[in-house]
Amino acid sequence: MASSSSAGEDATPTRILISVNESSIRGYPHPSISSRTAFDWTLQKIVRSNVAGFKLLFLHVQIPDEDGFDDMDSIYASPDDFQSMNQKEKIRGIHLLQYFVEHSHQLGIQCEAWIRKGDPKEVICQEVKKVQPDILVVGSRGLGPFQRVFVGTVSEYLVKHVDCPVVTIKRKADEAPHDPIDD
Amino acid sequence: MASSSSAGEDATPTRILISVNESSIRGYPHPSISSRTAFDWTLQKIVRSNVAGFKLLFLHVQIPDEDGFDDMDSIYASPDDFQSMNQKEKIRGIHLLQYFVEHSHQLGIQCEAWIRKGDPKEVICQEVKKVQPDILVVGSRGLGPFQRVFVGTVSEYLVKHVDCPVVTIKRKADEAPHDPIDD
Repeated sequence: MASSSSAGEDATPTRILISVNESSIRGYPHPSISSRTAFDWTLQKIVRSNVAGFKLLFLHVQIPDEDGFDDMDSIYASPDDFQSMNQKEKIRGIHLLQYFVEHSHQLGIQCEAWIRKGDPKEVICQEVKKVQPDILVVGSRGLGPFQRVFVGTVSEYLVKHVDCPVVTIKRKADEAPHDPIDD
Repeated sequence: MASSSSAGEDATPTRILISVNESSIRGYPHPSISSRTAFDWTLQKIVRSNVAGFKLLFLHVQIPDEDGFDDMDSIYASPDDFQSMNQKEKIRGIHLLQYFVEHSHQLGIQCEAWIRKGDPKEVICQEVKKVQPDILVVGSRGLGPFQRVFVGTVSEYLVKHVDCPVVTIKRKADEAPHDPIDD
């Protein structure tokens, strides 16, 4: 195979899709611990100093129900109230992506970021089909088998169903919050 | 996190453990299609031109029974016959590793390669614990769910049980041999 003697000759950067989400802990739109861990791992272990060799694609999937839940105490008196809720959601998503785009930009790494709504498992599969990245990086809370039964993991589903290679990056043990279900 | 603004500052190379095995198709010790695919993918998509940034670790796990099977037509008349069988196995393993070490050397990538005996799933888990690579790359035949029931996959086991991030690289569709169980 000729390919094994041609490392680095390809001018097209390696396209890494990183699925990112908000932290469930803090009120303000911060990346989740596992999203940050996945991003940092990608930079430190894969991109390293070769910033021109990679392009990062950040996908944030907003779960409609989850965001609705945050607004359970709100009073909806007119259609405008729903409008403003949607606006709020949108702004939170944009703030989240800003974190990753700014960091990539500071390091001189090409990137793109976008938001989709729906079930993360399904949406990530669809986006991988469409975007065809070279690799998909997903963070994981690294829950034990007992916790996993109740929580289910997006990463396990993706490893099975997505067409491109998938790397699951577990949160470091010392970064786990008090309740490991949180992230 | 300070780490996300320090891509590439770490002088320690990223250590990639690649599990390699022999082809089940050819008589002479050639790497399996999925091993070559995993190796080529690592070079093209991860290492790229940054050869100083990575160190490749090749682990070949020899399955005692499988090799015994090849020798079913042999006649064992004295303890020396078993000795020569062991020698033959050893040489096959060394030839296999030679392929990967030579290619890495030609590209100027640091590497190490070694052989272990036992059940691949268990041995790879043990070696990952001992060697602590940054990432484990395993090839996979990419069998469909129906074939998987009968064959079982080492890669699925590893994704669940190994401590470091695991990437499973499926064989390209056009590289699958006539019988997809072969590799």
